[in-house]
Amino acid sequence: MEHPKKAFGWAARDTSGLLSPFRFSRRQTGEKDVTFKVLYCGICHSDLHMIRNEWNNSIYPLVPGHEIVGEVTEVGTKVEKFKVGDMVGVGCMVGSCGSCQSCAENLENYCPKMILTYGAEYVDGSITYGGYSDLMVADEHFVIRIPDNLPLDAAGPLLCAGITVYSPLRHFGLDKPGVHVGVVGLGGVGHMAVKFAKAFGANVTVISTSPDKKEEAIKNLGADSFVVSRERDQMQAVMGTLDGIIDTVSAVHPLLPLIALLKSQGKLVMVGVPEKPLELPVFPLLMGRKLVAGTLIGGMKETQEMIDFAAKHNVKPDIEVVPIDYVNKAMERLAKADVKYRFVIDIGNTLKPDPSRD
Amino acid sequence: MEHPKKAFGWAARDTSGLLSPFRFSRRQTGEKDVTFKVLYCGICHSDLHMIRNEWNNSIYPLVPGHEIVGEVTEVGTKVEKFKVGDMVGVGCMVGSCGSCQSCAENLENYCPKMILTYGAEYVDGSITYGGYSDLMVADEHFVIRIPDNLPLDAAGPLLCAGITVYSPLRHFGLDKPGVHVGVVGLGGVGHMAVKFAKAFGANVTVISTSPDKKEEAIKNLGADSFVVSRERDQMQAVMGTLDGIIDTVSAVHPLLPLIALLKSQGKLVMVGVPEKPLELPVFPLLMGRKLVAGTLIGGMKETQEMIDFAAKHNVKPDIEVVPIDYVNKAMERLAKADVKYRFVIDIGNTLKPDPSRD
Repeated sequence: MEHPKKAFGWAARDTSGLLSPFRFSRRQTGEKDVTFKVLYCGICHSDLHMIRNEWNNSIYPLVPGHEIVGEVTEVGTKVEKFKVGDMVGVGCMVGSCGSCQSCAENLENYCPKMILTYGAEYVDGSITYGGYSDLMVADEHFVIRIPDNLPLDAAGPLLCAGITVYSPLRHFGLDKPGVHVGVVGLGGVGHMAVKFAKAFGANVTVISTSPDKKEEAIKNLGADSFVVSRERDQMQAVMGTLDGIIDTVSAVHPLLPLIALLKSQGKLVMVGVPEKPLELPVFPLLMGRKLVAGTLIGGMKETQEMIDFAAKHNVKPDIEVVPIDYVNKAMERLAKADVKYRFVIDIGNTLKPDPSRD
Repeated sequence: MEHPKKAFGWAARDTSGLLSPFRFSRRQTGEKDVTFKVLYCGICHSDLHMIRNEWNNSIYPLVPGHEIVGEVTEVGTKVEKFKVGDMVGVGCMVGSCGSCQSCAENLENYCPKMILTYGAEYVDGSITYGGYSDLMVADEHFVIRIPDNLPLDAAGPLLCAGITVYSPLRHFGLDKPGVHVGVVGLGGVGHMAVKFAKAFGANVTVISTSPDKKEEAIKNLGADSFVVSRERDQMQAVMGTLDGIIDTVSAVHPLLPLIALLKSQGKLVMVGVPEKPLELPVFPLLMGRKLVAGTLIGGMKETQEMIDFAAKHNVKPDIEVVPIDYVNKAMERLAKADVKYRFVIDIGNTLKPDPSRD
């Protein structure tokens, strides 16, 4: 579908996942729409899955990016929350039905008709394109205000990695001083879990397969303790002490050792997506009224609350800012977990339409 | 250990599980103890597992029974809640530490030092014996008052099967008019789940592998609807409609079809104990902030509340009362699920010490 607004970005064309410059179009600013010039966009691990079609639902050409931050350039006539010049962001979704129970409860993220920011069909029938591009148009309901004191380059990853952990920490009561929270996996999402849990005043234990992440977890991220999951003695020492665990690992891994770390009534919350089913031992759940849950990002109201909280408590991702023409290299490094902890593309300063392609 | 009180019951002697008459002893009535003449004892499926050592922790001779009802014959000097002549019951546990967090929250059932009613080591070092016997002695904290209008023979199964489902229905908010509850499996525990959920005003769907249980579930037990789990169309019709599911099945079974029946934020609560881990697909949990939990009976306060509620709302198990010398046959039938829905042994009228054995 040809829209009136010319746009430019980088897209993957096939399952090689290689990104290259791509001209496309975006819709006119509608009554409730906010149009903004993209300044920064974080690189989420799901971008990597999507450009390679690893979840078997990718539509090419695919412009990834759902940790998008920019400056408003135009607003529709009925837009109430934003004006030209405001700093705003768009996260993982750009639409939902607005009328189901989940939407009524500000949980648009669980609406069965939720529309993803890229690679999904929008209400007008066009395919959504993400933030590896110069321009975004989105309904104001799905636009977040970036607080003044939050650096713009660090704001993007909060819109996906940040809300992914903030929401379960809040929902499952792991957001209070005195609670003991475990964080499994120390990637882009896991390091945000440590930071938010610490900001809530929780006691945080990082559980990792990599002993060499210990110093980093404690000295840099502020975790209270660190346990190597393969070391039986270390795991034994933490047994029955955690109120909850945020499990960010997407690889297939055993749940039993994690369930054993929980207190009675402890909660194991999965935010990663292992491709295959995990083995769930039932008896250990029964013995302590424990539970295993899964959560997916958060609703728009909670996302705004999260970013306001982050600004107030100085919770920011650790990022490596890269130019757009580094994006394929960044994807390679991300695949090897070679980043502390999130790549952010400097779209505003480095994404330039190639005149020779006009 | 030889105790002063002579007692008589039926015990399993080895993994054959065959029960036969057995003389033993019980402790003197302590300051806080209640002694009662056993009148009825339900046969729980776990009795069958235990007499055959199927959980590899049985101690022989083993006197089973943890759905025990009787009449008080003696109380200790410091007993406050009971007097001689009261009708009382003992369920699955007879002790706990009294000082941990779980005990402080009236969740003795999750105390790490909880003492089972039979086959466990008591605080005095002796092994506990259950209710397939003429006499019980128990600390009053673990004794339940049987409400006047509840038939004594039907009261026993409430103390295990009843509380096993009442507690998760209450804890997980499945105890209100309008909520839609699924019950998986229609045995001793499952049929109580249907009855309690209906008494709470819930809409109840039974999910079963056996189409021939439909009429029974709806006409006799009062379920609102019935779904055959192997029939794809029937399952499809219920998809996304349940607020919660009480899963009473102890056989290994797939969770994915059950998770799919849940609404967003729905809860799948396991109360059966499959021997092997189940396959847990994580993505379907994430997509709706769903959870899988396990619960184990309930605390003493909640057990009293449950039985008072049952008496008030006429919630009773469907039982088949049998004499003690039918117990081995009853076990055979229970193994084939050939009972609607709970055997109860008429201990008071049929258990007689064999004088020739004195």
